[in-house]
Amino acid sequence: MNIILLSGGSGKRLWPLSNDIRSKQFIKIFKKEDGAYESMVQRVYRQIKETDENAKVTVATSKAQISAIHNQLGEAVCISPEPCRRDTFPAMALAAAHLTDIQGIDPGESVVVCPVDPYVEKDYFEALKELSIQAEKGEANLVLLGMAPTYPSEKYGYIIPEKADKITFVKTFQEKPTAEKAKDYIKQGALWNGGVFACKLEYLLRKAHELMDFTDYQDLYEKYDAMTKISFDYAVVEKEPRIQVMRFAGQWKDIGTWNTMTEAMEEAIVGKGMMDETCKDVHIINEMDVPILAMGVQNVVISASPEGIFVADKEQSSYMKPFVDQMDGQVMFAEKSWGSYRVVDVETGSMTIKVTLHAGHSMNYHSHKNRDEIWTVISGSGRTIVDGMEQKVGPGDVVTMSAGCRHTVIAETELKLIEVQIGEDISVQDKEKHELE
Amino acid sequence: MNIILLSGGSGKRLWPLSNDIRSKQFIKIFKKEDGAYESMVQRVYRQIKETDENAKVTVATSKAQISAIHNQLGEAVCISPEPCRRDTFPAMALAAAHLTDIQGIDPGESVVVCPVDPYVEKDYFEALKELSIQAEKGEANLVLLGMAPTYPSEKYGYIIPEKADKITFVKTFQEKPTAEKAKDYIKQGALWNGGVFACKLEYLLRKAHELMDFTDYQDLYEKYDAMTKISFDYAVVEKEPRIQVMRFAGQWKDIGTWNTMTEAMEEAIVGKGMMDETCKDVHIINEMDVPILAMGVQNVVISASPEGIFVADKEQSSYMKPFVDQMDGQVMFAEKSWGSYRVVDVETGSMTIKVTLHAGHSMNYHSHKNRDEIWTVISGSGRTIVDGMEQKVGPGDVVTMSAGCRHTVIAETELKLIEVQIGEDISVQDKEKHELE
Repeated sequence: MNIILLSGGSGKRLWPLSNDIRSKQFIKIFKKEDGAYESMVQRVYRQIKETDENAKVTVATSKAQISAIHNQLGEAVCISPEPCRRDTFPAMALAAAHLTDIQGIDPGESVVVCPVDPYVEKDYFEALKELSIQAEKGEANLVLLGMAPTYPSEKYGYIIPEKADKITFVKTFQEKPTAEKAKDYIKQGALWNGGVFACKLEYLLRKAHELMDFTDYQDLYEKYDAMTKISFDYAVVEKEPRIQVMRFAGQWKDIGTWNTMTEAMEEAIVGKGMMDETCKDVHIINEMDVPILAMGVQNVVISASPEGIFVADKEQSSYMKPFVDQMDGQVMFAEKSWGSYRVVDVETGSMTIKVTLHAGHSMNYHSHKNRDEIWTVISGSGRTIVDGMEQKVGPGDVVTMSAGCRHTVIAETELKLIEVQIGEDISVQDKEKHELE
Repeated sequence: MNIILLSGGSGKRLWPLSNDIRSKQFIKIFKKEDGAYESMVQRVYRQIKETDENAKVTVATSKAQISAIHNQLGEAVCISPEPCRRDTFPAMALAAAHLTDIQGIDPGESVVVCPVDPYVEKDYFEALKELSIQAEKGEANLVLLGMAPTYPSEKYGYIIPEKADKITFVKTFQEKPTAEKAKDYIKQGALWNGGVFACKLEYLLRKAHELMDFTDYQDLYEKYDAMTKISFDYAVVEKEPRIQVMRFAGQWKDIGTWNTMTEAMEEAIVGKGMMDETCKDVHIINEMDVPILAMGVQNVVISASPEGIFVADKEQSSYMKPFVDQMDGQVMFAEKSWGSYRVVDVETGSMTIKVTLHAGHSMNYHSHKNRDEIWTVISGSGRTIVDGMEQKVGPGDVVTMSAGCRHTVIAETELKLIEVQIGEDISVQDKEKHELE
């Protein structure tokens, strides 16, 4: 099975765990059988491999997410990077071209396309395999997966099938309806459109060439920012007469808000937390070092990270976006290709961060115009290079870098350090990359 | 007016703002007219001075609180320090001896004794003045302030007066009753016993000499840890036949739990916080740098500090103590005579703290056996002394101290620094003080 996983943009609906640079699919919140936690993207990737160990998985994502995906899925995972955001149709076309032109997959093969964020079980991936086989048959140009509705939701588009068979042609599509209309659709046997489909690669590529002017993957990649933003539904699905739908009645939860996220959690408490016996239906998700204590509250989600603290009625939590938009955007935690950092103190004229580098990784060789920096290594071993001068470092070693001075650190083992930044105008923009001499 | 303020022990019922070393009376939570915040102890001290600018105030407190009291009330405030905790009777006796033997106050004068933590207005202090004058008259040996009950509380002892007059003799005392019994007492005109009284200093001292073997203040101070723990109520009040009570019907709130604390707060949000319009009767008290967002919750208190995060139904919050007792006691924030510190990162083998020194203050000259330390000054200016070597420091300067090395920092202006501690066995106990050479 060939599968394109669409790993979407940053989401603010799971603040404070997701933010402008960390998307919800990277939050490690789902408990595995071995007791460790995994993120949405790790869970889905693991489930695909468990269902079909030969599955060829390609993650279609923005450049900003590449580091996080490699950190979570390993260096070997295949990524089709989008140079910029251009909605789903150009993204799928680029990924399809990546499969044929870069990975050398036969355009006659089928491909399954699905978002990375639904919370699903093994039967979903078995269904994707069937979907792939059905697309290969060529009875239709597109085969959608239609989720059997569990309530008259206003959040989804609806697919009205011709017959009640498991696989049948699509009669019509309906936009997100009112609950009233949704009830009516469901009576007609309608299914939710979850944006999951299979088709032959050559079909996707043909549609791409019809609508966009490019020769091959490399050409499309280079022209990508000139492409029109357009969704796959609008560009292809709504205009295609030969579409089948396959009915899927297994678990499919769209994890976009704290309400649905907590429904999918195995445990009430992730991280340091306690609750008294009068708490009911409370979830605590705590990424801080200090404990959360909850008493006497019901139907509430409590989440804390270095970005902030969120306490909400679960239903109400889905309306958080306008409030999160108001917050000033100082990013307090970030994952990078080389590791991660966390802001531990902010003062006028200084900022202190904790930096963790993965073994074998290093920062870019870089300099800052407007700040001095002081590193104190707290664990691990490695080497620093400052203006070309190399030095071995370990716990307790201090390296000072004046503004303008070029520097990097190369971790031999996992290496942690405290970085104190001193300057009147500290900003993440103040960074110039250099080649190592 | 002579007044002894009893500044009690550490309280866990206002966690995470109070803890083993920071008591509730030092939390800056009450908004003044000028917009700044003050603590219970600052509020009470200010109110006393506004009522009687010549009032002689003595704060009776444990050694551990001396720094916090000087930080909040200034260096001039008179403190009677208790060498160790020995309940209220020895504490009052020691304070009374301090007034006569150290401050030279005539034992014939009266003194008012009251706890530092009720939330009261100016009329309360006017009542204390009257209480003091009444005690001076000598009609009774003790004059209690009796609070007019606002509901049949089970939390307080009750005073049954002989008559309904404002000032009258006490008929009997009643222990904390059931609500049923409390109703009955209130029908009889009973008043709450808030532990507030006035008497002549010589009366307090006579009782002290009757029950404890000491000569003067210095002698009592030195023998203090050999004294029996006994409460003033048990040792004196219950045995004294000549007690008057003065009725007080003004505001008097006992701020011992989050429930009563939030009732006394002028504002719903102290610190960085936001709530949506579906929140009702919610209080946010946030000492962290990051924001708290509350949505759709009612009758809830949310409090965050470097010690932890508390989310509770207000009623339920009064049962927090057993949960707080379970938490491991790493103190994450502390006020010292020279300033304050906050733990910003804890790792195996290292700890990072932010230290703030007041202008003109310095740490003790000290050393550690089991850890190296590295200071990076982030703001202000001062001098460090390391093994006798003095050095001027300012922002960006780094000072490294190996284990065993003696060190201090003297702040000229307010000075802030990041201290990284490196060692396998980091502990607050690992500290040896030295004389400056």
